Amino acid sequence: MPYQAKVTVMFRKSILDPQGAAVERALKAHSEGIDISSVRVGKVIELMVDGPGPDIVEEKVKVLADRILANPVMEEYTVQVESLS
Amino acid sequence: MPYQAKVTVMFRKSILDPQGAAVERALKAHSEGIDISSVRVGKVIELMVDGPGPDIVEEKVKVLADRILANPVMEEYTVQVESLS
Repeated sequence: MPYQAKVTVMFRKSILDPQGAAVERALKAHSEGIDISSVRVGKVIELMVDGPGPDIVEEKVKVLADRILANPVMEEYTVQVESLS
Repeated sequence: MPYQAKVTVMFRKSILDPQGAAVERALKAHSEGIDISSVRVGKVIELMVDGPGPDIVEEKVKVLADRILANPVMEEYTVQVESLS
């Protein structure tokens, strides 16, 4: 059965995110009428997965996220799985 | 009023994503029992926004995404706004 999985990888809150700080400065210079803070930049990996069921797909994608897509020492990740059938 | 906005920026489907292709090869080597395809890697920018209302915040964040966070020629983006109050 086909699924779409989305893995979002962000630095842990305790880790300084210099790219986010740089983006924040750029955004603040162009944001009239709203106040922007706490900008953080992360990665998103979208993949199509063919597997036997949503629970197994989610479990296996979490293993891949933990081993390959994220560095669990510095980063945290979330996994979303959506059925396409 | 405080909001959390999330901007997801991906290459357009018609643009080759070499980083996604490289990640796909790495994932395939570690995925037993599931079949992985169409891997694409993008950016996610999370920000806290203080503004007068969700519609105005979403509209202003879309302008920022279009001008600063994404390159609309090669990339497409989605904006999600969530109230924190």
